[in-house]
Amino acid sequence: MEDPAAKPKGVVKHVLLAKFKDGVSQDQIAQLIKGYAKLVHLIEPMKAFHWGTDISIENLHQGFTHVFESTFESEEGIAEYVAHPAHVEFASIFVPSLEKIIVVDYKPVPVQL
Amino acid sequence: MEDPAAKPKGVVKHVLLAKFKDGVSQDQIAQLIKGYAKLVHLIEPMKAFHWGTDISIENLHQGFTHVFESTFESEEGIAEYVAHPAHVEFASIFVPSLEKIIVVDYKPVPVQL
Repeated sequence: MEDPAAKPKGVVKHVLLAKFKDGVSQDQIAQLIKGYAKLVHLIEPMKAFHWGTDISIENLHQGFTHVFESTFESEEGIAEYVAHPAHVEFASIFVPSLEKIIVVDYKPVPVQL
Repeated sequence: MEDPAAKPKGVVKHVLLAKFKDGVSQDQIAQLIKGYAKLVHLIEPMKAFHWGTDISIENLHQGFTHVFESTFESEEGIAEYVAHPAHVEFASIFVPSLEKIIVVDYKPVPVQL
């Protein structure tokens, strides 16, 4: 169903759900998203970044409007990211722009049925 | 950085964050995860399923402990999934076992810098 080669051993997904504060403009949001994406080029263990706006229809999004998904090579890679000066600087601008935030990290595992 | 072929046009990610109720045992959780995974074989537009437990270190997980990520071929595919009898039956068992739930759907887009 999926290419096993696309799931290297130890990959960790870092998922951030966000709701921006009312006063944050669409232009500001676009700049923040670019700033987030730039971290891929600045922090070595961060291997991929994607984002999207919520388009769910089940009304279980609890007010969250944006999803940011990044991929790391290992748990240690996430620890390095969290402590990296480029992340610390970005987070100091990004987090205060948010009304709500959730961050979860997980190692994606398929289920053997 | 990623194989573009792995992101077919229109793919939609369906991310569910969960915290199980205190009374739900590890065995029951394992059975519920298998039940979730089985939907891949029952609902045609559902193309992949992975899950994991939260291992984040930033303390922004807001009490959520499990992540379930499934991939659909389109927005219409998610609508078909939501309405599918197999999903409706599973959700009627799964959702009452949860203390907290968030569901977001998004089309993952990379950022051009």
